[in-house]
Amino acid sequence: MTTTEAGPRVIAVTANLLRKNAETAALNREAFRNQGILAVNVLSSPGSGKTALLQATLASLGCRAAVIVGDLATDNDARRLHGAGAAVVQLTTGTLCHLEAEMIQRACAELDLGGVRILFIENVGNLVCPASYDLGEDLRVVLMSVTEGEDKPLKYPKTFKTANVVLISKTDLASVVGFDRAAALENIRRIAPQAVILELSARSGTGMDSWLAFLEARRTSRHDGP
Amino acid sequence: MTTTEAGPRVIAVTANLLRKNAETAALNREAFRNQGILAVNVLSSPGSGKTALLQATLASLGCRAAVIVGDLATDNDARRLHGAGAAVVQLTTGTLCHLEAEMIQRACAELDLGGVRILFIENVGNLVCPASYDLGEDLRVVLMSVTEGEDKPLKYPKTFKTANVVLISKTDLASVVGFDRAAALENIRRIAPQAVILELSARSGTGMDSWLAFLEARRTSRHDGP
Repeated sequence: MTTTEAGPRVIAVTANLLRKNAETAALNREAFRNQGILAVNVLSSPGSGKTALLQATLASLGCRAAVIVGDLATDNDARRLHGAGAAVVQLTTGTLCHLEAEMIQRACAELDLGGVRILFIENVGNLVCPASYDLGEDLRVVLMSVTEGEDKPLKYPKTFKTANVVLISKTDLASVVGFDRAAALENIRRIAPQAVILELSARSGTGMDSWLAFLEARRTSRHDGP
Repeated sequence: MTTTEAGPRVIAVTANLLRKNAETAALNREAFRNQGILAVNVLSSPGSGKTALLQATLASLGCRAAVIVGDLATDNDARRLHGAGAAVVQLTTGTLCHLEAEMIQRACAELDLGGVRILFIENVGNLVCPASYDLGEDLRVVLMSVTEGEDKPLKYPKTFKTANVVLISKTDLASVVGFDRAAALENIRRIAPQAVILELSARSGTGMDSWLAFLEARRTSRHDGP
């Protein structure tokens, strides 16, 4: 629904950008494999609990991890994640609404990845644009908090269609907001039948064990051991 | 942070799009003025309560209203808003992350605006991209729910810098999520000193009177009477 006049040129430029991004993402993916790193791209709306999830995850993870955090502005999230035992790099994108593979490539050059087994990438809070940009990740994890409503998969289909994991977050608030769990699960399964569905609360800790076990299984099956 | 190679061309195309959008927005604004319509562009993250706010607003508004609803997919929101006494048009944008002025122009051609005094435009749920597109609105209203965290103005500054009104929504959940109201107000005032700040819960009704009175005052001061 861009204007007819500008449409084709925009589409061509976007296609070029996405092709270049895919090339860089393939390089990232190869580098992660060679280093034995499981790369996890975490997507969601603003305020769905990505940083809180990573804080709780880093606190209990059984292996060395690193985090790349993307935001338009501030290093709030990197500061929240510092001290949790992982190397953290904050990317600020200015007005750009998503992370791109080349930013990850550059951020990795700044990180000490020696011994790192999982790299978490916290994308810009946005349920639309990040879905189009492969970063070279092994797992794409989409958070959907119980406070956002059950219909988010239907309304933001591309993000959910490309998810390997859908995490229902903030489950400790489910009853107070009247969350309809059956409807949410049905919507996720309809749009993202490929995705593993996990439910958790980083605040209460409920469901964190399953999430950590899932990560550990993916990491060890990828690398055949620790 | 796009690649240097593709950068300049993308910037030029974007500048052309934004210039064309600004021209159409100016036409929309003139048309709204001529018809005595207050146009209100409502922005927020997915799931901050835009539709719930509009449902509660339409139920108590003292004048005729119309609504244009933008989503990537589904007509869920339009269906939620039907029957509340307002004409509703749903725009589905596919993969586009924001509404543009031309879409509003076309949607208005489909709406019966006779007697309408307020036109609400519910933008795509996204705290980044819609901020760059003037739709010809008189008021830009940004919702920020208490469940999203207090730092959203700092992390999505452009959206808040362009707001005429910041609505803190879902205040009925403030205590259960441990919302730090003072910090939120400080962050809003720092990034958006120009904005009127209102706090409400569409669910409990708290604060709705002030919001409705604010809308009514803006409408009548603009048009010198009903």
